[in-house]
Amino acid sequence: MTGPGGEFTRAPGNGRQLKGRKPADRRIRVERPYSPYFRYAGPGALVAMEAASVPRTRVGRGFARVRAILFGRPISLHAELGERLNVFTGLAVFASDNISSSAYATEEIMRVLVLAGAGALVLTMPITIGIVIVLAIVVTSYQQTVAAYPHGGGSYIVAKDNLGTRPGLIAAGALLTDYVLTVSVSIAAGVAALTSIVPELFEHRVALGVGLVVLIAMVNLRGIRESGAVFSIPTYVYLVSILGLLALGLFRFAIGSMPEYHAPAAWIAAQQAQPLGILLILRAFSSGSVALTGTEAVSNGVPAFKPPEPRNAQIVLILMGTFFGLIFLGMSFLAGQLGILPDPTEQETVISQLTRTFVGAGTPFHYLVQVSTAVLLVLAANTAFADFPRLSSILARDGFLPRVFSFRGDRLAFSYGIVVLAVIAVVLIVVFGGSVTNLIPLYTVGVFVAFTLSQSGMVRRWWRRRAEDSAWRRKAAINGIGAVTTGVVAIEVAATKFALGAWIVLILIPVLVAMMLFIARQYRSVATKLAVRPDAEIPRPHRDERVVVPVPGINRAVVQAINVGRSIDPDIQAVLVSDDPEEAARIQERWQRQLSDIPLIFVESPYRALVGPLLAYLDVLDRAWPADKPAPVTFVVIPEYVARSWWERILYNQNVKRLRTALLGRRHTVVVNVPYSREDIEPMIPPDRPAER
Amino acid sequence: MTGPGGEFTRAPGNGRQLKGRKPADRRIRVERPYSPYFRYAGPGALVAMEAASVPRTRVGRGFARVRAILFGRPISLHAELGERLNVFTGLAVFASDNISSSAYATEEIMRVLVLAGAGALVLTMPITIGIVIVLAIVVTSYQQTVAAYPHGGGSYIVAKDNLGTRPGLIAAGALLTDYVLTVSVSIAAGVAALTSIVPELFEHRVALGVGLVVLIAMVNLRGIRESGAVFSIPTYVYLVSILGLLALGLFRFAIGSMPEYHAPAAWIAAQQAQPLGILLILRAFSSGSVALTGTEAVSNGVPAFKPPEPRNAQIVLILMGTFFGLIFLGMSFLAGQLGILPDPTEQETVISQLTRTFVGAGTPFHYLVQVSTAVLLVLAANTAFADFPRLSSILARDGFLPRVFSFRGDRLAFSYGIVVLAVIAVVLIVVFGGSVTNLIPLYTVGVFVAFTLSQSGMVRRWWRRRAEDSAWRRKAAINGIGAVTTGVVAIEVAATKFALGAWIVLILIPVLVAMMLFIARQYRSVATKLAVRPDAEIPRPHRDERVVVPVPGINRAVVQAINVGRSIDPDIQAVLVSDDPEEAARIQERWQRQLSDIPLIFVESPYRALVGPLLAYLDVLDRAWPADKPAPVTFVVIPEYVARSWWERILYNQNVKRLRTALLGRRHTVVVNVPYSREDIEPMIPPDRPAER
Repeated sequence: MTGPGGEFTRAPGNGRQLKGRKPADRRIRVERPYSPYFRYAGPGALVAMEAASVPRTRVGRGFARVRAILFGRPISLHAELGERLNVFTGLAVFASDNISSSAYATEEIMRVLVLAGAGALVLTMPITIGIVIVLAIVVTSYQQTVAAYPHGGGSYIVAKDNLGTRPGLIAAGALLTDYVLTVSVSIAAGVAALTSIVPELFEHRVALGVGLVVLIAMVNLRGIRESGAVFSIPTYVYLVSILGLLALGLFRFAIGSMPEYHAPAAWIAAQQAQPLGILLILRAFSSGSVALTGTEAVSNGVPAFKPPEPRNAQIVLILMGTFFGLIFLGMSFLAGQLGILPDPTEQETVISQLTRTFVGAGTPFHYLVQVSTAVLLVLAANTAFADFPRLSSILARDGFLPRVFSFRGDRLAFSYGIVVLAVIAVVLIVVFGGSVTNLIPLYTVGVFVAFTLSQSGMVRRWWRRRAEDSAWRRKAAINGIGAVTTGVVAIEVAATKFALGAWIVLILIPVLVAMMLFIARQYRSVATKLAVRPDAEIPRPHRDERVVVPVPGINRAVVQAINVGRSIDPDIQAVLVSDDPEEAARIQERWQRQLSDIPLIFVESPYRALVGPLLAYLDVLDRAWPADKPAPVTFVVIPEYVARSWWERILYNQNVKRLRTALLGRRHTVVVNVPYSREDIEPMIPPDRPAER
Repeated sequence: MTGPGGEFTRAPGNGRQLKGRKPADRRIRVERPYSPYFRYAGPGALVAMEAASVPRTRVGRGFARVRAILFGRPISLHAELGERLNVFTGLAVFASDNISSSAYATEEIMRVLVLAGAGALVLTMPITIGIVIVLAIVVTSYQQTVAAYPHGGGSYIVAKDNLGTRPGLIAAGALLTDYVLTVSVSIAAGVAALTSIVPELFEHRVALGVGLVVLIAMVNLRGIRESGAVFSIPTYVYLVSILGLLALGLFRFAIGSMPEYHAPAAWIAAQQAQPLGILLILRAFSSGSVALTGTEAVSNGVPAFKPPEPRNAQIVLILMGTFFGLIFLGMSFLAGQLGILPDPTEQETVISQLTRTFVGAGTPFHYLVQVSTAVLLVLAANTAFADFPRLSSILARDGFLPRVFSFRGDRLAFSYGIVVLAVIAVVLIVVFGGSVTNLIPLYTVGVFVAFTLSQSGMVRRWWRRRAEDSAWRRKAAINGIGAVTTGVVAIEVAATKFALGAWIVLILIPVLVAMMLFIARQYRSVATKLAVRPDAEIPRPHRDERVVVPVPGINRAVVQAINVGRSIDPDIQAVLVSDDPEEAARIQERWQRQLSDIPLIFVESPYRALVGPLLAYLDVLDRAWPADKPAPVTFVVIPEYVARSWWERILYNQNVKRLRTALLGRRHTVVVNVPYSREDIEPMIPPDRPAER
C-alpha cells in the first residue's frame, strides 16, 4: 500500500502488490483502491469522505437513511461553508433561545410582586423597563464582541483570551450550568404553555417534561442540523402571533375598549401580603432578568453567518433585542392594564390568560399562541443541546474535561455531552417538580457571571490594544458599562435569590472549575511523562519476546490463537488452567498428538481460580529469565468471541474481560485479542463433520 | 522455562536460560522459580498454591487478611477433605434452613385459619400433624436418596440422571426460584423476629431486610466458609431456647397452670369471618407446608460429611426431622392452648407472643429467643447464598447457564450467582413489602415440584436396577410414596395459592427451563463450529501479516506501540486520523525526522470521526492486496492507558474501547493492546527534561 515515505502510487496498475521482507522493497501500484471511502490528497494523505463514516450494521444504515431524510446528510467541516445563515434564518436560529424567554419573563416578575398583594403588580412595568435598559446595554456591548471575534466569541473564549485560564473556566462553568438550566426551564415553560390549554396534562407535567428532554436528546444523538428552515417556521409563527396579539391589545387600549378580566376566586384568596420592600422589588427584577438568557448565542455563532459575518451577526443581535424588548414591554403593559394575576398553581401561564382575555378561551388563535410558544421553547432547549456539547468539546480539546466529550459518535454527534446534559436536566426537572418558578433562581446567576467576565475581558482587550486602536477609549467605555451593569445584576441576583437556590449555582461553579483544573493537571502530568524530545533518537526494540496462550482445550479458536502467536514469535507456549487433572491429562495427550511442537503447561488450580494462577505463572516465567538480560515482552494471546447480540455478550467473553483487565496492569505484557465468530471462523481446518468436543 | 515437551528441569542451576531461535534449543535450569506460587507436579504440570490467588492490590490483601481471621482461609478442593462435618456440626450447617422455618410455619397456618374467625384456630394442631406426617414421609424417602448418591444428590442431579434433561431442568428451575425465596422469606421472618422486640423498627422493615440481604451478599462475595463453628452456636442456642420454652409450656399445661393470654383489641376487631370451607383448610395446609423447605439440603451435601458419609447424612436427616417435628407440634399445641391470635399487622410474631406470655415481655429470655431466631433465619438465608451459586455453577458447567456463573471470583466465590441472587431477593422483598405472609404463596410450589421430580427419579432408578437389586420393590415403594405425597401437595399448593402468587412461579419455572435450553443450544452450536477432529492435522499459519498502528502524534506510548508492532512484523505503518491538516503536517514533518523508517499515513477526517475512517482505511489496504494471495492478518496495535482510579477510567481509553469493539468484528484482524501507565512507562527514551508535546 505504501512505500517508506508513505506515498500512494496512483498509476493505474494491475492491482497487485510486490511483497518483500523489508518495507523499502514494497511499492504498490493500485487502481484507486481508496475510493469510495477517501479522496487522494497527496503523498501519504487521504481525506475521508462521507462513506467512510457510514454505519456498518444494517440497523445503523437504516437509521442513517431516515435521518438523512429528516435532517439532511451530516455536514463535514468543508461542507458547512455552503450552509451559512442570512439575517432571516440567523434570527430564527439564534433568537429562539432569547425570544422564548418572553414566554415567562413577565410572569416571573409578577409572581414575586404578587407576594405583596395584587396592588404591587403596578411595579411590573417599571421593572420591565429597567430590564429592557439592561438588555439594550448588553446588546450594545456585544456588538463589539461580535466585531472583535469573527471566529466566535463565547464567554469562555473571550475571558480565557483576555483574562486568563481561571476566569475563562469560571465563565465556562457558568455557561455549562446555564445550558443545563436552559433545557430545564424551557421545557418546564413549554409544558406550562401546553397545560394552559389542556389542564388534564397538568398532573403529568414532570413526566411530560422528562419525556420531552429524552426525545430531544435522542434526536440530537441521532444527529441534527441547526437548519434555518426547521427553526424559521416556529420562530416567525411565534413572533407574528404574539406581536399580533399585542397589537390587538394596544389597539383596544387606544380605543378604550379593554375586555374584562376576572381572576379565579381561589387565586385571589391565595394572595399573601408581605410588605412591599426594596428587597422584594430587587427579587422581582432578578426574576425578570431571565429575559437576557440566550443573548450571547449570537456572539458565539458568528462564523455560521454569510459574509460579512460580523455585520450580519450584529444586525441579528439588534433585531433580536428589539423584538424581544417590544414583546416584553407590550406583555407587561397589557398584563398590568388588565390586572392579570399569576396562577399560584402554575397551571395556566400569563400569556394564556392574556390571549384568552382578548380572543376567548379555546379559540383557534388561543391554541396557536400556546402551541407556537411550546414549540419555540422546545427549540430553545434544543439549542442548549447544541451549545452544551459544543462547549464541552472545546473544553475537552483544551484538556479541561474528559476527552470523551470531544468524540463525535459514529453518528457525528458529541454523544457524551448530550447524554450528560439530558441526565442533569431531567434530574433538575424531577427535583424541582417541573416548576419554572422554582428553577428560575438557579438560572440567571450563571448567565450574568458569564456576561460580566466576557465584557470585562473585552475592556482588558481594548486596554492592551490602546497603542494600535485610537478608538480604544470609546470601545472600552461601552464594554465597561456592559461589564459594570451585568456585574451589578449578577451580584443583585445572587444576593436576592441566594436562599431560593442561587447558592446551588454559586457552589457548583467553583466545583466545576476545580474539577476542570484537576482534569487538566492529570492530562498534563501524563503528557509530560509521555513526551519525547523532538530531537531525540528513537531506539529500536531491545527486548526479547515470548508468547503465552491460555487455552481451555483444543478447538478452532485455540488453533487460530496459537497460529497468531506462532507468527509473533517462535518462543511460544500454551497454558491450561483447570481444576480437573483427569480432563487435563486427556487434553495433554491429545495436544501431544496434534500440536506437538507447542509446549503445553498444565497449571492445576485447586482453588478453581483462573486469573490468579495465570498471573502467578507469568511471574514465574519472568523470574526464570536470565538476570543479565532485560525482561522480555510477554505477548498473551487470547481468543475473543465476536458477540452478535446482547445475550451473546453475556454468554461469552466474561473470562476474557477479567483476564484483559488483570493483564493490562502487568509490566512488559501485551495483550493480543484474536477474534473468532460463529460465522467466519478462520477455515484453517477443512470443514469436516463435527468432531468430539 | 520449558522444553518442547513442556518439562520443568528441576536441577539446581544458575537461574539462567539459554535462549535460541527454536524452542527445541531451549532447556532451562531454574532453581524452583515456581515457589511460592506453585507446587511441582511432574513434567509440564504445576499445582497452584494459595499464594497464586492472593489479591495483588494492597486493599485486596487487607480484605483477605480480615476474611482469614473471620472465616478462615479459603478452601482448596484438596484441603476440603480435612474439613468434613460430623453429626453435630452437620446438623448445625444443614438444618438451619429447615429448622428455621419453625419460626413461621405455625404462624402461617394460623394466618389462613383466622380468616374464618378465631374459632377456626382449633384446626391448627390437626393441620400441623398432617404436615409432620408428610415430613416423615419425605425424610424416609430421602434416606434412600442419600444412600444412592454419596457424591451429592440434589433434585437436579437425581432428576437429570434418571428422568432426563428436561425434568432435570424443571427441578433446577424450581430449586433456583426456591433458593431466591429462601432468602426473601428468611430475611423477612428474621426482621419480623426483631420487630417483635423492637417495634420502632417495624416501619423500616423493608429497608432492614434489603440491608441484611446486601450484607450477606457482601460477606459471601468476600468468600465465606460454611464452617461448623459459625453455624453451631446459633443453631444450638435456638434449639435449646425453643425446646426449653416448649418444655416449660408443656410442664405448665401438665400441672394445669397455663398463663393468661390477651390479644390486643385491635387484632380481635380485625378478624373477618369467611366461612370455614375445605378450601380454606387446604390453603392453611399449603401455608404450613413451608415447613418442609430446606429438607433437601442434606441430600445435596452428602460429600461434606465425615466417612461414612451416607450414614452420617442419614442420621442428620432423621435428627433434623425429629427436632423440627417436635418444635412444630409443640408450638402449634401451645399456641392453640393459649388461644394466641396472629398479629394482623405482622409486627409481632407468634413465637414472640408465646414467649412473652410464658416468661414476660422484655425479659432476657424473650430477647434470647427472638435474637437467636433472627440469627438462625439469617443463617438460613446464607445457606441459599451457598446453594444458589453452587447450583448455577453446576448448570453453567453443563452449559445451561452463562459461563460466568461458573467463575469463581478472585476471592473464590461464585460472584455472579451471588449478585444475581441478591438482586432478585431484594426486588422480592421490596415488591412484597417485606411481608412473610405475602411471600409464602410463591415459596412452597417450587420446593414440592423439586421433591416430586427427585423422588420420581428415584423410583425410576430402582426400576432400572431391578435386575441387580432384589430389594428394589421396597425401595421403589418408599420413594413412590414420597413422590406421590409430595406430588399431591405440589398440586394442592399450586391450586390453592395460585391467585395469591403461585402463578408467578408456575410461569417462571417454564421460562427458566426455556432459557436454559436456549443457552445450551447456543453454546452447543458454537462448540460444534469450533470443534477440531481429534485426528486432524493442524495446519501452520498460511497468511501474511501486516501491522497498523493508529497514532495521535509522537509520544512514548506511541513509540512503545510502534516497537511492539515492529517486532510482530516488519510490514508496519502508522495512521494518523485527524480533522486538522495543519497539525497533521507538523506531526508528519517530525515523524519524518524521528521515525523515518515507519510510513505514516495521514487520514483527514472532516466529519471528525475516528473509528469509521480507520476501518475504511483498513478496508482499502485489504483491497490493495494481491487477489491471488489469501488476505493477510492485520495486527492493529493500540496503546492503552492503565487506569489507576475510577476517574482515570473516565479520562482515558474511551476511544480505545470504541476502536477495539469495532475492530473485533473485522475479518482477519487481531487487536494488540500495549499498556502504558504513568509510573512505569517503558523507559525507552532517556528521561530527559520534559519536551514539547
